[in-house]
Amino acid sequence: MTDRPCITIEHLAKFVGQRVTLRGWVRHLRKSGKLAFLVIRDGTGDVQAIVSKAQVGEAQFTQACQMTQESSLILTGTVRADARAPGGYELEAETLHVVHIADPFPIQPKEHGVGFLMDHRHLWLRSRRQQAILRIRHEVIRTCRTFFDERGFTLIDAPIFTPNACEGTTTLFETQYFDQQAYLTQSGQLYGEAAAMAFGKVYCFGPTFRAEKSKTRRHLMEFWMVEPELAFAELADVMDLAEELVTIIVHRVLTHRRAELQTLERDIAALEAVVPPFPRLTYEEAVQLLQAKQVSIAYGDDFGGDEETVLSRAFAKPIIVHRYPAALKAFYMQTDPVQPDLALCMDMLAPEGYGEIIGGGQRIHEYEKLQERLREHGLSEEAFRWYLDLRKYGTVPHAGFGMGIERVVAWICGLDHVRETIPFPRMLYRLYP
Amino acid sequence: MTDRPCITIEHLAKFVGQRVTLRGWVRHLRKSGKLAFLVIRDGTGDVQAIVSKAQVGEAQFTQACQMTQESSLILTGTVRADARAPGGYELEAETLHVVHIADPFPIQPKEHGVGFLMDHRHLWLRSRRQQAILRIRHEVIRTCRTFFDERGFTLIDAPIFTPNACEGTTTLFETQYFDQQAYLTQSGQLYGEAAAMAFGKVYCFGPTFRAEKSKTRRHLMEFWMVEPELAFAELADVMDLAEELVTIIVHRVLTHRRAELQTLERDIAALEAVVPPFPRLTYEEAVQLLQAKQVSIAYGDDFGGDEETVLSRAFAKPIIVHRYPAALKAFYMQTDPVQPDLALCMDMLAPEGYGEIIGGGQRIHEYEKLQERLREHGLSEEAFRWYLDLRKYGTVPHAGFGMGIERVVAWICGLDHVRETIPFPRMLYRLYP
Repeated sequence: MTDRPCITIEHLAKFVGQRVTLRGWVRHLRKSGKLAFLVIRDGTGDVQAIVSKAQVGEAQFTQACQMTQESSLILTGTVRADARAPGGYELEAETLHVVHIADPFPIQPKEHGVGFLMDHRHLWLRSRRQQAILRIRHEVIRTCRTFFDERGFTLIDAPIFTPNACEGTTTLFETQYFDQQAYLTQSGQLYGEAAAMAFGKVYCFGPTFRAEKSKTRRHLMEFWMVEPELAFAELADVMDLAEELVTIIVHRVLTHRRAELQTLERDIAALEAVVPPFPRLTYEEAVQLLQAKQVSIAYGDDFGGDEETVLSRAFAKPIIVHRYPAALKAFYMQTDPVQPDLALCMDMLAPEGYGEIIGGGQRIHEYEKLQERLREHGLSEEAFRWYLDLRKYGTVPHAGFGMGIERVVAWICGLDHVRETIPFPRMLYRLYP
Repeated sequence: MTDRPCITIEHLAKFVGQRVTLRGWVRHLRKSGKLAFLVIRDGTGDVQAIVSKAQVGEAQFTQACQMTQESSLILTGTVRADARAPGGYELEAETLHVVHIADPFPIQPKEHGVGFLMDHRHLWLRSRRQQAILRIRHEVIRTCRTFFDERGFTLIDAPIFTPNACEGTTTLFETQYFDQQAYLTQSGQLYGEAAAMAFGKVYCFGPTFRAEKSKTRRHLMEFWMVEPELAFAELADVMDLAEELVTIIVHRVLTHRRAELQTLERDIAALEAVVPPFPRLTYEEAVQLLQAKQVSIAYGDDFGGDEETVLSRAFAKPIIVHRYPAALKAFYMQTDPVQPDLALCMDMLAPEGYGEIIGGGQRIHEYEKLQERLREHGLSEEAFRWYLDLRKYGTVPHAGFGMGIERVVAWICGLDHVRETIPFPRMLYRLYP
């Protein structure tokens, strides 16, 4: 076997002039007299193999000519550099072993409806475009983890089953947990706070769930979120951290996944503009900006998808909007000592109309204040007993944020909808495959 | 601030002779005349600070003497190397700022019952032992991801909501998904197979769920699993891969988390014995070995916890047991062409009585055979339509496995029970905090 190592297409460049074995699937077949041209994919890339009847013999040539789209094969041949070939290399076939002749493949190089493609998601994953998106997703996730690992954060996986509803019960998925009612987590934050008091700096990274009965381009029922939480930290610290994280993610995708961005025909210049500092606006400034752009909004109103779109189109970089009215925000948000009706919170909006990708801020660290806030929000003190405990035993100012992976990937890839940013999307009424 | 950088305890060695600021919590206070000794933790380690009345003044000294366990503080002082100090360094305090005086901490340096500790899991995380375990968990997870990333596997997150029950409905958590019934995933494998046909080599890594009404030291309702899946691969390939993965995990923990292993008083030699090759036994050989050890088992019986314990005590290394009777295994298992009543499957058992940490094997890749197996198992062909599709469009031999993170961590840490290997364990009737 040493004269023909079994390699993958991404490594072809290292084997020019050598005999290698490739294992993969046929994307496309073109016949021309005594030659057949097979475009082969193996999950790492595509390459064209030239099969000549003179070289492989009658029997194998006939087989090659019968290969349908997505048929699987093992092929040995010599790697040639060829500037005209897509990718710069091609394979001169010497032997060809057919593993399986595929039935007519349902997905053709033509326009299919989204419903059809989603029903065939298990096969749609084989397309160049979907592979580019999911490789970028992998790069984004890997970068997040490396970012926090290198900065001394401890990974603390938050539980998926939670005993109580922390931000209202209307968007919760419920399940029977033996003799109790349990809910699927919407965020690991509260658990992250407990862990930050133990480890100083932590992050969790897992799936989260929202039973939102809305069909928008920004929503999935099941999505992944990375959530850092820091003890001895304030709002400004997490604004800086979020800015650094997003900058590095974009930079790494530009460096390591440029071919994939090109496959997606992404505007590279728009991503190259993502360098710190990002514009930072108070909520009040954001409202004024919206009003100046003729958006009908009053101070005190929350931003919906439309307002986010307008704001995020107004800048070439991500922006941070901070200090929203406390009344708009969750019970645990710390208030601004300078203006106590404001929350020490922040959202990061991606540019080009993408909107919110990060939400976070500083948490209330005073026991009585948190207790009062729970009461005001009609939440059970008993259910939050452990969370209140954190304010009894060496409480410190702390802050954190959550970043939605699918929204970041949608923005970086330049997609209209988050549904293609996760391998098997779960949307309203979409549970198959 | 440049003359006293704000640092963490793990980096003290770099600052000997310098003034630094630490932020943390008090583990312990001892007074002796005009001196107070504060053992401080900050999540990265512990250090003793020496507070002298002469140095900090009357007022701050009085404050220092009032600090209770887990009170929070910010402390500036000079780092001294001292061979007698635990960790080798101590801090000569210059100024001390109390952030919060803690209420009497519920967890004392004495024996508490497991139920009590689990009720206070949010505080228990602050103990040295729990921190050592969770840092090792982090190291294990990081190593798994790096292992697959470096070997060209694409991360493909499998969905948590699944439309059908693939291994029987008795151990499934159910939830209402709008107008449908959904189940929480027990394994990402089937989705991994679809992705392997697209990307060649993939892995998923996420929480999985089993509603098992059993209270054993090896079971959690919610646990994390890493699952690689490879196209063009057979049983032998995944046995090799699993062996390499486990070897590297143990090696990395020994290298990077030795201090934590020492905190846990782990037998280091037992871990150092984990070098390839691992013994490989057929199911039949394993049965013979059990019988030789007077275990009452017949050929054809499945292994329970007791059998696994005996087998895994018989060797100093992890062992791989392969080729179980197909009748004992799931519907998708490929059968051995040499002896078709055997499945091309494998389990890896950790030594010292820990038992199964990995399960996997080769999958059926032939359409008719899989269809027949679904029928035999009384499973709906319609529900598995997409899974059958993978055998219609360029099917290839493929294999993979799943490794349970909590069991690996329990073994490496030398714990009696998996409950301490995850930040917030979910067990039978345990849903709080």
